[in-house]
Amino acid sequence: MSTVAPPSAPEANNRVKAVFDDIRATRKSDFVNNMWLWLAFDPDLLERTWAEVKVVMATPSALDPLVKEMLYIAVSVTNSCGYCIHSHTASARTKGMTEAQHADLLRVISLAAKTNQLATALQVPVDAAFDSKSEQ
Amino acid sequence: MSTVAPPSAPEANNRVKAVFDDIRATRKSDFVNNMWLWLAFDPDLLERTWAEVKVVMATPSALDPLVKEMLYIAVSVTNSCGYCIHSHTASARTKGMTEAQHADLLRVISLAAKTNQLATALQVPVDAAFDSKSEQ
Amino acid sequence: MSTVAPPSAPEANNRVKAVFDDIRATRKSDFVNNMWLWLAFDPDLLERTWAEVKVVMATPSALDPLVKEMLYIAVSVTNSCGYCIHSHTASARTKGMTEAQHADLLRVISLAAKTNQLATALQVPVDAAFDSKSEQ
Amino acid sequence: MSTVAPPSAPEANNRVKAVFDDIRATRKSDFVNNMWLWLAFDPDLLERTWAEVKVVMATPSALDPLVKEMLYIAVSVTNSCGYCIHSHTASARTKGMTEAQHADLLRVISLAAKTNQLATALQVPVDAAFDSKSEQ
Amino acid sequence: MSTVAPPSAPEANNRVKAVFDDIRATRKSDFVNNMWLWLAFDPDLLERTWAEVKVVMATPSALDPLVKEMLYIAVSVTNSCGYCIHSHTASARTKGMTEAQHADLLRVISLAAKTNQLATALQVPVDAAFDSKSEQ
Amino acid sequence: MSTVAPPSAPEANNRVKAVFDDIRATRKSDFVNNMWLWLAFDPDLLERTWAEVKVVMATPSALDPLVKEMLYIAVSVTNSCGYCIHSHTASARTKGMTEAQHADLLRVISLAAKTNQLATALQVPVDAAFDSKSEQ
Repeated sequence: MSTVAPPSAPEANNRVKAVFDDIRATRKSDFVNNMWLWLAFDPDLLERTWAEVKVVMATPSALDPLVKEMLYIAVSVTNSCGYCIHSHTASARTKGMTEAQHADLLRVISLAAKTNQLATALQVPVDAAFDSKSEQ
Repeated sequence: MSTVAPPSAPEANNRVKAVFDDIRATRKSDFVNNMWLWLAFDPDLLERTWAEVKVVMATPSALDPLVKEMLYIAVSVTNSCGYCIHSHTASARTKGMTEAQHADLLRVISLAAKTNQLATALQVPVDAAFDSKSEQ
Repeated sequence: MSTVAPPSAPEANNRVKAVFDDIRATRKSDFVNNMWLWLAFDPDLLERTWAEVKVVMATPSALDPLVKEMLYIAVSVTNSCGYCIHSHTASARTKGMTEAQHADLLRVISLAAKTNQLATALQVPVDAAFDSKSEQ
Repeated sequence: MSTVAPPSAPEANNRVKAVFDDIRATRKSDFVNNMWLWLAFDPDLLERTWAEVKVVMATPSALDPLVKEMLYIAVSVTNSCGYCIHSHTASARTKGMTEAQHADLLRVISLAAKTNQLATALQVPVDAAFDSKSEQ
Repeated sequence: MSTVAPPSAPEANNRVKAVFDDIRATRKSDFVNNMWLWLAFDPDLLERTWAEVKVVMATPSALDPLVKEMLYIAVSVTNSCGYCIHSHTASARTKGMTEAQHADLLRVISLAAKTNQLATALQVPVDAAFDSKSEQ
Repeated sequence: MSTVAPPSAPEANNRVKAVFDDIRATRKSDFVNNMWLWLAFDPDLLERTWAEVKVVMATPSALDPLVKEMLYIAVSVTNSCGYCIHSHTASARTKGMTEAQHADLLRVISLAAKTNQLATALQVPVDAAFDSKSEQ
């Protein structure tokens, strides 16, 4: 069950078709996952979302593509977004995540959530040493 | 302001002193940050928390130490834990995070939060292709 | 699957029946959605929850009924409450939300989640200009 | 810094004065904490919030008053509400929470956050044994 | 305290100056709030964030500008982003939010958080009536 | 659907078998719920998670076992972890939680979420009276 109905013939819309074509070309795969099909209910939202995902996730940058997928998983788990956890775990595997790395990812993000609770419950004051001074 | 008073002479307690000594030795630094001082109100909680942080964050594993710090930041930001964001951003810098990597980290975790909202608002159904089949 | 069993004959209980009758009268509809059926496991909780929802959501106030439904969706998405997202998206449609407004709602709440991450990750200090001074 | 200015003479308003008087009488203390002073910017919101807090937290019920305060802390920490963590930790102490109970509370809520991440990251399917069947 | 140091002379950078000039022109005000100053540590992140905020929040669309600010507040409160709550409450006031509307906003978003907890705790199944069927 | 495949013959692995045996012995039940089966994809993660859950939840401590289960539910609901809500509600029932206590738990955690929103939206300053002074 979902809150909008995806278009039954999405690629009849030229703007949607252009985005789907670019997704397939960028990923070198025929598979267009449901997220994009559902966003196609509003072509502007689809275009802008894909444009940003392409720039941030599919363009070489200061971080490794697999690291970026694991960061995506970390946020999606903390926000309890089931769809996103599934899609980005699948992407991370495609980009080479091993089972040992997956387990390590789980160890880190579950420990982070645990110590977040401790620091927040205690309202620990931030050490002065952690401050970033203004550039001189 | 915090919700417990940290002990005024924490290292007078042998269990606390042993943990603080191990923190200094592990990190090769005299600096023991406030999180540990505040956890010292309960030596058992201090010991167990440090033991786990040491195993997960300070022991070689399938993920790079800097990647683990960035995952920690991703969770801490999503949980809005100010203390943890400060302490793990500082740790990430110590482990070599550049300004460009920091900006890229922000790009990824803010985009993840954004698309989490979209997938959750639409209640997009999970693609069958994302399922992990049981091992044969 | 749910964590309590809804009563099999809820309206055999007079307090439950009175609430269900008022829900139907207020909404001018025979449909009583599952939330109320499940809350009926405890008539006091049912009565108080409905009383508050009726006052806040079904009574004329400073905000338009459709705006209130969209605010409800914004919170429910951020909290990842699937049931609430479904029920309040349906209510917003009943109150006239167009597809263009729905897309705009998604644009705003996903951007808000994104910039929340940025401001929190940077721990941006609040501008003095934003403070509310005490009344004179 | 806050987003509304609390009234400079709150008890000049009769509705506010009646609530403040009831807070003092219920708690047998002259201290009215900032939450109520800030809510006084809208007397209706103040009255309804206090009425609900009084019924749920200050009226004998199926759960012990100290347990209710600790549940309040658990939610407030998970939501990262600094004000609420402070006020309900103080209330829990007033109702007898020992330092050992406080440490135990932290152990449980931090472990819960940790295993929440694990179950969510793995998307573990709910066991059929956990379902609540409809009453017969 | 913050996790990056804002540039000491941000407008010496042409890309930053162009964004700040556009913020001032769009808002018809000389005030550039801290969020943009801090984002200026990475001009690309600054440019992209402002471009998106301008399109979504400062361009006429299907929703009223004040409604968009209130939705922003709703998400920011739920994510506990102090900076964002301050800045968007100030913006909402600039766009005409009355004290009565502010109180009503608080009533709705706090009730939503409350019933989110109830529906999630009960794991209420979604009514079939809420499903959006595919377009025919 | 889940993100890892649980092992098809988990107890063929000695480390997994030892943990499952201990779960059965500790709980005096043959039932090993899915959480442990799924964690068995990484025996180290399984061992450490069970060891911590056993110490915190199944060992006598300053808090009553039922209170600990209810705290677990409070956090799990706030984090929207469906699996955890189901498993810990079932555990709480096993430990004696009555329907009246369950309803009271819901009243408290939903009120907490509501007032969290109010305090956060108002950015109420913490009262000096709530500070914990350093021990003398």
